[in-house]
Amino acid sequence: MQAFHMRDCIRKTKEGVSLTEFELRQLVAGLTAAEPIPDYQIAAWLMAVCCKGLTDEETSILTMAMRDSGQVMHWDSLPGSVADKHSTGGVGDKTTMILAPICAASGIYMPKMSGRGLGHTGGTIDKLESIPGLTTTLEPERFLRLVERVGFAVSMQTGNLAPADKVLYALRDVTETVDSIPLICASIMSKKLATGADSILLDVKVGSGAFMKTDADAEILSRLMLAAATADGKRCTTILTDMDRPLGYCIGNALEVEEAVRVLQGDTQNALGELCLRLAAELLAMSGKGTVEACLAQAKKTVTSGAALERFSQMIAGQGGDARITENLALLPQAQCKRVLKAASGGYIAAMQSEELGRAAVLLGAGRMTKQDAIDPGAGIRLAVQLGDAVSVGDTLMTIYADSELKIDEAEPLLRKAMTISPDAPMVRPLIHALYTNRT
Amino acid sequence: MQAFHMRDCIRKTKEGVSLTEFELRQLVAGLTAAEPIPDYQIAAWLMAVCCKGLTDEETSILTMAMRDSGQVMHWDSLPGSVADKHSTGGVGDKTTMILAPICAASGIYMPKMSGRGLGHTGGTIDKLESIPGLTTTLEPERFLRLVERVGFAVSMQTGNLAPADKVLYALRDVTETVDSIPLICASIMSKKLATGADSILLDVKVGSGAFMKTDADAEILSRLMLAAATADGKRCTTILTDMDRPLGYCIGNALEVEEAVRVLQGDTQNALGELCLRLAAELLAMSGKGTVEACLAQAKKTVTSGAALERFSQMIAGQGGDARITENLALLPQAQCKRVLKAASGGYIAAMQSEELGRAAVLLGAGRMTKQDAIDPGAGIRLAVQLGDAVSVGDTLMTIYADSELKIDEAEPLLRKAMTISPDAPMVRPLIHALYTNRT
Repeated sequence: MQAFHMRDCIRKTKEGVSLTEFELRQLVAGLTAAEPIPDYQIAAWLMAVCCKGLTDEETSILTMAMRDSGQVMHWDSLPGSVADKHSTGGVGDKTTMILAPICAASGIYMPKMSGRGLGHTGGTIDKLESIPGLTTTLEPERFLRLVERVGFAVSMQTGNLAPADKVLYALRDVTETVDSIPLICASIMSKKLATGADSILLDVKVGSGAFMKTDADAEILSRLMLAAATADGKRCTTILTDMDRPLGYCIGNALEVEEAVRVLQGDTQNALGELCLRLAAELLAMSGKGTVEACLAQAKKTVTSGAALERFSQMIAGQGGDARITENLALLPQAQCKRVLKAASGGYIAAMQSEELGRAAVLLGAGRMTKQDAIDPGAGIRLAVQLGDAVSVGDTLMTIYADSELKIDEAEPLLRKAMTISPDAPMVRPLIHALYTNRT
Repeated sequence: MQAFHMRDCIRKTKEGVSLTEFELRQLVAGLTAAEPIPDYQIAAWLMAVCCKGLTDEETSILTMAMRDSGQVMHWDSLPGSVADKHSTGGVGDKTTMILAPICAASGIYMPKMSGRGLGHTGGTIDKLESIPGLTTTLEPERFLRLVERVGFAVSMQTGNLAPADKVLYALRDVTETVDSIPLICASIMSKKLATGADSILLDVKVGSGAFMKTDADAEILSRLMLAAATADGKRCTTILTDMDRPLGYCIGNALEVEEAVRVLQGDTQNALGELCLRLAAELLAMSGKGTVEACLAQAKKTVTSGAALERFSQMIAGQGGDARITENLALLPQAQCKRVLKAASGGYIAAMQSEELGRAAVLLGAGRMTKQDAIDPGAGIRLAVQLGDAVSVGDTLMTIYADSELKIDEAEPLLRKAMTISPDAPMVRPLIHALYTNRT
């Protein structure tokens, strides 16, 4: 019978000595136990992890232990490969709405659990709920039937996935211990592994506005997440994408649904469309549907044939929404006020502060600062230009949408500041910085 | 109006950015406020301090803020210089009982607040209470009258000195954040500065069994403590003394009183006696009584004249004790059982594990493991040899005292292990490793 002492764990981590599997599992069990480990001891340990790190093996064990703190889902009734996708949080990131129908139309299943947005990044749930009638509060049985029939569905994350992560995250949030890469890995992967998918695609945003500021950090996180997935027998790909610009042209809930529908309607010759096809190809390849090249061709085919849009339409109907929006985008909620922002000088779009754009969208009503805030589905920003584009004086930079001129007045200075026009064409980095995979 | 955010403090310390005086004072105020800072945030900050350190200036400000969290004492009614002394915790350390009467007999005042012992180090209060009748629970007025008349008195530490340190220490103790030198400095010096002495002597024990394992660490601590004292306008000397051996021959309460009395009776030609005279000379020199050399001569004179022993006797009587013990040591409590330990081989005393000797003394009844344990005043160890002494087979190494043979059986193996006899004479380090002072 081994004895567990939290003080030993704190001291070992502080001194750079590895914790044993027994210790890590007891520590995680102690987060949600009836007599939990005192939070001041957890807090001290978290800070020691921030300052001294964990080994890759400790990170994997911590991740598994957190996964096992709650329900681990199984999709045995689904007659094919099950895929999941996670993004570390982007501005204008509507990839799930495009990716999932493409994958579904290609014969794999995506029972997608998602969350609401908070702060300057939006959530897929909020975006989909801008579709009139659509609900994301689905009984498990109804959710499963819909996934079986359509290939995907999107539900609010249910309560009991990795509850240890909820305890740990709440404490990290108030003790300035969020930005530890091993802790970020354990937080993301414990939940992803608990959702029970066979293949996991992780979109790691990199840039000034993202959680990972540098490619080097993003690479470390990618490596750790891959190792945890491998240890759990899952196929996994991490893709590092640029966050020094928003993804696509639209930021805001109904606006992003509109943009997603346009891609599914065939408008794929742009950064967003190309990224989504590439992500879909990765998921299909991980699911054994052939080489990445063959899967890319297959993904494109689901768009050109209309099959992916058809799946999107079926999902909307299955979740109680008005599926006619896939044919008539005017049925989506519209903002009462709009204002066009024009270029005050000519040159090139040299910088786009995606975090600032996200904050402005919150001011316009498209996001929430606290969990209680209501969202205005029609509010947001439609960019007319992308990073690196040439503009002349008077050209439209963007259109701003909100339910009052007052909100637009408030957001406009932030939006002007978020976009830099300079005489010289900027170096534009490729959208995809790197890709790591355990796919064989 | 500045705003205080504990999260900012945590983040800054974690990132190695200095806190402002405002932040440090608010942080300390928040330890004892009606709505205190949550202890998980304090714990995270403490661990960040352990891992990233504090600057010397931050440490001084923290110390002052903690001093100001409670009562700061004044001794304006005493017609001379007031001195205090602190030891970081030693085995067999009976210096206060020798030092204080010497200083009192030399014309300076030592209103000494002390604590009980816990674990393997003893406390002056426990030692004095082994004198029949003596109490250390003195009303402030009686304590002050006694100090005025005799020059010193020894009282239990009262409740309201540096209460912020009590909060912080309780949390450090359970979060493995005790061993941070800036935090140790703030803890010791906040209390010492609050006791209101003009001159402070700090005895920093160094060695395997001590808080400070190396001279380098002890030097850093000394430098920080001196800086805090200087910032508060106090004279201060820190003296680094060896803890790779016990101090003197006796460990145990009545046994140590006996040894102290013997020194005061004139038996100063030994390590303990010489150290006490030197410490007294430092305190006298800090108090403006002349050069260290002149003060050393003065200190010796108080012993040879019997003046110091007379002061000790007056203090005992003043605190209700049987002062006849200073003339008849047999009046001190005696253990019921004793056993002589003899050398099983010849050679030199090459090592003495003072921490192990201290632990054995606790087993014998001379100390306590928890605050509730009772103490046996007669229990302990009387060494017959010192580090470096030559011994032959059958020579007495020590005599063990307890109230039962069972306890002696239990302690004996530990005591044998604590003493190493080897064929070669060891290198014996001087008892005083170094001395730092702000005395001018």
